[in-house]
Amino acid sequence: MADYRTPKKDLLFALRTAGMIDELSSRERFAHADYETVAGVFEEHGRFFDEVWAPTNAPGDAEGLTWSEDGVTTPEVFKEAWAKYVEAGWQGMNLDPDYGGMGFPEVVYSLGAEAVIGSNAALSMLPGLTTGAVELLQHWGTEEQKERYLPKMISGEWSGTMNLTEPQAGSDVGLSTTRAVPQDDGSFLITGTKIFISFGEHDLTSNIIHLVLARTPDAPAGTRGISLFLVPKFLLDDDGNPGARNDVKCVSIEHKMGIHASPTCVLSYGDEGGAIGWLVGEENQGLNAMFTMMNAARLAVGVQGTGIAEAAYQKAVDYAAERVQGREIGSDEKGSVPIIRHPDVRRMLLSMRARIEATRNLTTHLAASIDMANSTEGEDSQGWDERVELLTPVAKAWCTDVGVEVTSTALQVFGGMGYIEESGVAQHFRDQRITPIYEGTNGIQAMDLVGRKLPIRAGAAFADLAKEMRRVLTELEGIDELAATRDSLAAAFDELDTATAWVMEHGLADPRDALAGATPYLELVGLTAGGWLMARQALAARREIEQGAADGKEYLEAKVTSARFFCEQLVPKVHALTPSITAGHGILYEVDAEALASS
Amino acid sequence: MADYRTPKKDLLFALRTAGMIDELSSRERFAHADYETVAGVFEEHGRFFDEVWAPTNAPGDAEGLTWSEDGVTTPEVFKEAWAKYVEAGWQGMNLDPDYGGMGFPEVVYSLGAEAVIGSNAALSMLPGLTTGAVELLQHWGTEEQKERYLPKMISGEWSGTMNLTEPQAGSDVGLSTTRAVPQDDGSFLITGTKIFISFGEHDLTSNIIHLVLARTPDAPAGTRGISLFLVPKFLLDDDGNPGARNDVKCVSIEHKMGIHASPTCVLSYGDEGGAIGWLVGEENQGLNAMFTMMNAARLAVGVQGTGIAEAAYQKAVDYAAERVQGREIGSDEKGSVPIIRHPDVRRMLLSMRARIEATRNLTTHLAASIDMANSTEGEDSQGWDERVELLTPVAKAWCTDVGVEVTSTALQVFGGMGYIEESGVAQHFRDQRITPIYEGTNGIQAMDLVGRKLPIRAGAAFADLAKEMRRVLTELEGIDELAATRDSLAAAFDELDTATAWVMEHGLADPRDALAGATPYLELVGLTAGGWLMARQALAARREIEQGAADGKEYLEAKVTSARFFCEQLVPKVHALTPSITAGHGILYEVDAEALASS
Repeated sequence: MADYRTPKKDLLFALRTAGMIDELSSRERFAHADYETVAGVFEEHGRFFDEVWAPTNAPGDAEGLTWSEDGVTTPEVFKEAWAKYVEAGWQGMNLDPDYGGMGFPEVVYSLGAEAVIGSNAALSMLPGLTTGAVELLQHWGTEEQKERYLPKMISGEWSGTMNLTEPQAGSDVGLSTTRAVPQDDGSFLITGTKIFISFGEHDLTSNIIHLVLARTPDAPAGTRGISLFLVPKFLLDDDGNPGARNDVKCVSIEHKMGIHASPTCVLSYGDEGGAIGWLVGEENQGLNAMFTMMNAARLAVGVQGTGIAEAAYQKAVDYAAERVQGREIGSDEKGSVPIIRHPDVRRMLLSMRARIEATRNLTTHLAASIDMANSTEGEDSQGWDERVELLTPVAKAWCTDVGVEVTSTALQVFGGMGYIEESGVAQHFRDQRITPIYEGTNGIQAMDLVGRKLPIRAGAAFADLAKEMRRVLTELEGIDELAATRDSLAAAFDELDTATAWVMEHGLADPRDALAGATPYLELVGLTAGGWLMARQALAARREIEQGAADGKEYLEAKVTSARFFCEQLVPKVHALTPSITAGHGILYEVDAEALASS
Repeated sequence: MADYRTPKKDLLFALRTAGMIDELSSRERFAHADYETVAGVFEEHGRFFDEVWAPTNAPGDAEGLTWSEDGVTTPEVFKEAWAKYVEAGWQGMNLDPDYGGMGFPEVVYSLGAEAVIGSNAALSMLPGLTTGAVELLQHWGTEEQKERYLPKMISGEWSGTMNLTEPQAGSDVGLSTTRAVPQDDGSFLITGTKIFISFGEHDLTSNIIHLVLARTPDAPAGTRGISLFLVPKFLLDDDGNPGARNDVKCVSIEHKMGIHASPTCVLSYGDEGGAIGWLVGEENQGLNAMFTMMNAARLAVGVQGTGIAEAAYQKAVDYAAERVQGREIGSDEKGSVPIIRHPDVRRMLLSMRARIEATRNLTTHLAASIDMANSTEGEDSQGWDERVELLTPVAKAWCTDVGVEVTSTALQVFGGMGYIEESGVAQHFRDQRITPIYEGTNGIQAMDLVGRKLPIRAGAAFADLAKEMRRVLTELEGIDELAATRDSLAAAFDELDTATAWVMEHGLADPRDALAGATPYLELVGLTAGGWLMARQALAARREIEQGAADGKEYLEAKVTSARFFCEQLVPKVHALTPSITAGHGILYEVDAEALASS
């Protein structure tokens, strides 16, 4: 099987449509990120990951990781892949130019991330987490912290981690017990155990900057007593270089179903008295700081859903074109033909393609909305901020659920070969299955949407989004080719209105009724938003065809077809969801917890 | 995590409702299989697999298999598990009493198989394939073949395999090229390579009886030139004991994503001149013989979907009851509570339970239908035969697709822990993913349903089934508790009628239009049939409550609740499927095969 190839043309199409790049680059902040410039960067960026990272994906999975008391050894092929990445300077894509970054918009970073993820999902977590840590320090760090840490993190010489989870504190981060005791010199001594720390220990960078949630001695209980600390693996010497080893150790790594080459570490802080750390932001405000980073991280996981699905899709298309099996129905040809000619295989492929484009459009729109918020003043900015808040849980959960489905379909196209590890698609399937779990399970996202996001401005923020989505119906009017798409979307918007009204109303009376249907409600929002953006894709592609655009008619017509397929054949699932959304919590509690067990 | 526990009470509930055991045991052929007798057998049978097999599941997966030129070494813990299985005599459950079997109905075997699969899916393939081989020989073997081979296969001392697939011949078995050259003594010399042969080589039995598809020298091309041969690993000596080694070798085993402890072999026949084999059935009728076994095998894979899902569900319920995280919404309690109290977790668990019961009901009804056909004379028998033909592809595909979904939901309940192999649920997820693939991919099943089964008696067979399903609406009338269930089912039956009429009509004009929607059509049939049987479950449970049955009111009320949940909240997905079913093949071919690749 051929390795992953960055779908540069598809990424650029998304950038200039859902990604609003012309609008963004018309603003001063992103004036350097005009479409042509980004297209040039993507050309080089995509080639780098195709050539340097993609060939390391399967070997990295097969070799996996080795833990010892001295640390974690990553796969041999990762060393060169990472060194070349640092040399090329790709880490700084969206990061602060004052510290060496390129300062591109989030939407450029987000689309570019597909190449990083698609070429090697396990390794992609290292730059991903480092970006998150940098963004957090950019926002909350002191000037001194920024100067000491950011340049080397943005260059990729050092990496960053996020330390939230403890054995008893997962989704419920308020239960965490890691301690931070202030010292006379302004530092803190950190003690405690953190689990599920991705790239918490590894051998690819010369330092690792841990961002750690912990409690100071008199902190209030729960989430309001959590502070954030910067704890480097190696303390910096007077020249700012890694010096003495800090008191943090990786005591084990997890044996996971996928992303085998991404170390998931148990980190023990303070076995020898306490790891030295420094407060980031204000005391007891750690969760706020973490939340800054969490929206970006959730968007990034949504992009993983698409990126891994795309990698699996590429393998499936190749296989379907090569694998000869069965006669062609409705043809006079006598011999067997490539399975790509069979209707059922064709349905699988087109449905994968449509779903990939829909999820890509959603994360792209979300990333561009972040940029719009960051480059807009006043009330308009609030509108974009609200959209980011509303769509973040949807992008994280829906794009990863769809990503799992698409990757599973890819495996299915292979038949028995898909179940064999050598096909490579099994790895994508294993890798993908983490995305609905981490950065807040998809159930947590659904509760966030229903419990925290819908109530923004008493529902008016969501109403604004729904209104904006409906506007596409006007644009679709009178286009014969898109009449069925329009009808399907109109029905979906009605379904969304009905479901949203139910959830808002009943959620006020008894939150359990809203939460009981939170997961199907999130899917309903995802499908509707996906359909909205796919309809816009069809309209944009038609405009480009009219303008005789460079991508060519056939390419653009395919964008219309996949949009139609998505809206006409996949969006109708919305009608299956309302019964669950509006059923309330009663039936879920009819069977006692004990009686749920099989007998 | 606790090991798997056979859900004996649930299996017996299914046996006396969907399983029609009272009706079956009223017939002479199954007079010995009355409910009380089977209940006693299930007690012992379940305990055996819980105690002897279940503890070998995780170690078997972790240890896996070793291949050498001398053969395949299975996990150490399997030796005792298999020896005790043979000693207990469980292999003969549904097999011919004349050769040592117990002669129980298929429905007893099918429900009992859940214990075999749930306790160790990888190892369960050995008895499963042996049963298939025995059934085939029972039907097509000569008296001599039966006498020589069946007793030791039915005792479990020897095992059986099915050899269909070759590298170029998967779904398209007509492409197979393995040769069988007749010898003067009536035997044949077999040469060729077979792949994907489960338990094609292993160290658990003293002989392996391969059933192999091959072509005689002058056989016509395609499927009409395929014959079936019996090829033992060890040729029998004059006393009928394993003697000289036959010329068949396992040249490699596959490195699979799951069922790590089930050897998937490449078998090479005739490297040293030809393996000695004997014709089973008539020349060129091999595929017919294979089809005898294939219906049973497809039903068995459907049961795997349920069995593995049940094992995963049990782990998820246990974990949800133990894992403390988050406050209870709508409660005044201050502390964190087990996650089983949260609405979203509750929804996951109830939806898993409902789907498990629905798939169990479907395979149980199908198995009982086989028994009805086998114990009925004349026209009535034809009706049952037709139902078996219609429901077999649905049971195989729908129960395994649902099985994958349920197992994925179980993993999700665990959050991050689910992705760690030590939780055990990851193994179920990996194991389960083969079921939509083997014994004919689910796409092949959908094509079978639409292309071969719907046309039986020009659609009248399916119309009879649809009519029978609608009858449940009459039974549901006037029951307040089930009013919403009835409404939901009535709408689903209408949807089924609409979709079926479309498929029949358009399939005649252009088969591609029917095939384009075959997969969503099969799902529609699965959901509707599942809903039908779940409504019958609710009615049966209510009757048993009225009669004051031994299982207790709470247990039976839970059966009503899960039935209602299935019909009211899951069955409505049927309305999402019709747009795909009735879209035709046109849109699937708008994008050229070459243009489907990403760019």
